[in-house]
Amino acid sequence: MLSWVNGRPQDAVPVTDRGLSYGDGLFETILVASGQALGWALHMDRLARGCSALGLPPPPIDGLNADRAGLCAIGPDPAVLKIILTVGGTARGYARPDPFAWRRIVSLMPAPAWLRDDYESGIRVKWCRQLWFSDPDLAGIKHLNRLPQVRARAEWTDAGIAEGLMRDPEGRVIGGTMSNLFVIKDAVLATPNLTQCGIAGTMRARIMAIAHRLGWTVEETALSVMDCYRADELFVCNAVRGIRPIRQLESRMFRPGPVTRALQREFGFPWPVPEDAR
Amino acid sequence: MLSWVNGRPQDAVPVTDRGLSYGDGLFETILVASGQALGWALHMDRLARGCSALGLPPPPIDGLNADRAGLCAIGPDPAVLKIILTVGGTARGYARPDPFAWRRIVSLMPAPAWLRDDYESGIRVKWCRQLWFSDPDLAGIKHLNRLPQVRARAEWTDAGIAEGLMRDPEGRVIGGTMSNLFVIKDAVLATPNLTQCGIAGTMRARIMAIAHRLGWTVEETALSVMDCYRADELFVCNAVRGIRPIRQLESRMFRPGPVTRALQREFGFPWPVPEDAR
Repeated sequence: MLSWVNGRPQDAVPVTDRGLSYGDGLFETILVASGQALGWALHMDRLARGCSALGLPPPPIDGLNADRAGLCAIGPDPAVLKIILTVGGTARGYARPDPFAWRRIVSLMPAPAWLRDDYESGIRVKWCRQLWFSDPDLAGIKHLNRLPQVRARAEWTDAGIAEGLMRDPEGRVIGGTMSNLFVIKDAVLATPNLTQCGIAGTMRARIMAIAHRLGWTVEETALSVMDCYRADELFVCNAVRGIRPIRQLESRMFRPGPVTRALQREFGFPWPVPEDAR
Repeated sequence: MLSWVNGRPQDAVPVTDRGLSYGDGLFETILVASGQALGWALHMDRLARGCSALGLPPPPIDGLNADRAGLCAIGPDPAVLKIILTVGGTARGYARPDPFAWRRIVSLMPAPAWLRDDYESGIRVKWCRQLWFSDPDLAGIKHLNRLPQVRARAEWTDAGIAEGLMRDPEGRVIGGTMSNLFVIKDAVLATPNLTQCGIAGTMRARIMAIAHRLGWTVEETALSVMDCYRADELFVCNAVRGIRPIRQLESRMFRPGPVTRALQREFGFPWPVPEDAR
């Protein structure tokens, strides 16, 4: 793994970093393919929304652009570019440093293996017991306080289960631990409303934009467990793994359908396009 | 500042540390005076409860004991010992490393200046707008996901305000950003119930134990804003700054009373004992 801190090769950060102490920062995980950081503008937009939500200055976009260009010029491809942006360091205390200076921690690592079968047949998912508690101030953004997702991911070790779905305390489905969920019923696309909790993924935004362009109906709404079981098609998505149909939710089986296939086709590389969708 | 990582002098941690990535860990802030880490057993108990709440093995108490002894032998006194315990490192993904290994990040720094006036006359505090959202799974423990407290602390810059009080979404008072709150009315001591959110401080535990020993009534209960305004005495406490009476909450003035004075006298050094309490 290559890593730069504030633009210099460095694989460590001071023990006083506020990302470590309090999670006082944000992150992004971006797919790099053929030298391009896919969806870069959307990732930068979310960082900017995150800075605003945390009461911080706008993100250091020029520095991040330089980090991206520098690392992509020397690193593996395809790859995952991970950005962690923290509020610098203080020895102790919740008060932020004054004057303020960003710390950019940017790493580039080989992309994961994409399993063709995950895209063609789909993946198995489960319900997590861990709830996604509400915090409307922090909903949607990708901050560094991720214990609920860590705890949810710790609920299974079966390598055959690719993702866990999380709910809020009212039983509304919020999404996967590391992905957003789409539910298709009678040709209507729906995805959980993320105003109270959850992370608004860049793939989710791209899919919604495509759906609008194609004239499909797409709803951000409250979804129940029963809405999932009654769906015609279900899929999860994120920036690194693309669109993966759900073939099994607990004991209920699904088959990837035409909406999922059409969206997979839109994105194509770097996710294998199933034969039946070509 | 002296800092050790896993028992060796080191002032940095790998960029892959899961404390940094996700806040996947716990911390403690402990006062050291005359070579003693005050309330050590209570801090270790809270760490153990935190590990259990996060689904982690028991904390590495032997290593932490060695860190404490080693650092206190060479560092300043009085001092603050800060322990950060993280789940080690992973390049990416919420799944925890297997096999698992703790990372102990232990720092020793000079104690803050204790201002006699803060203990004698008391401090000024304000209400924070930032809410303390509920997460009963994580309530009480001192994990590394502290964005709500950071955001609350960012609400004021007036150096004359020593602490901000936070409420939950139902308007119940939870405590200060970095301290626990006690409310005294008609000789009854009350402190917010922390089953839904908040951090259960070691000073809070010591004060409750003393109150029980002295035969005082002490309640862990829901407290409203009006309960605070109607109090005879109010104080905040934490392990580093001890017991500080509140002399002003927004525009309402209070005077330190006999219960606060008796408790301050119990603890004595290293916090200045007000003249009228000697």
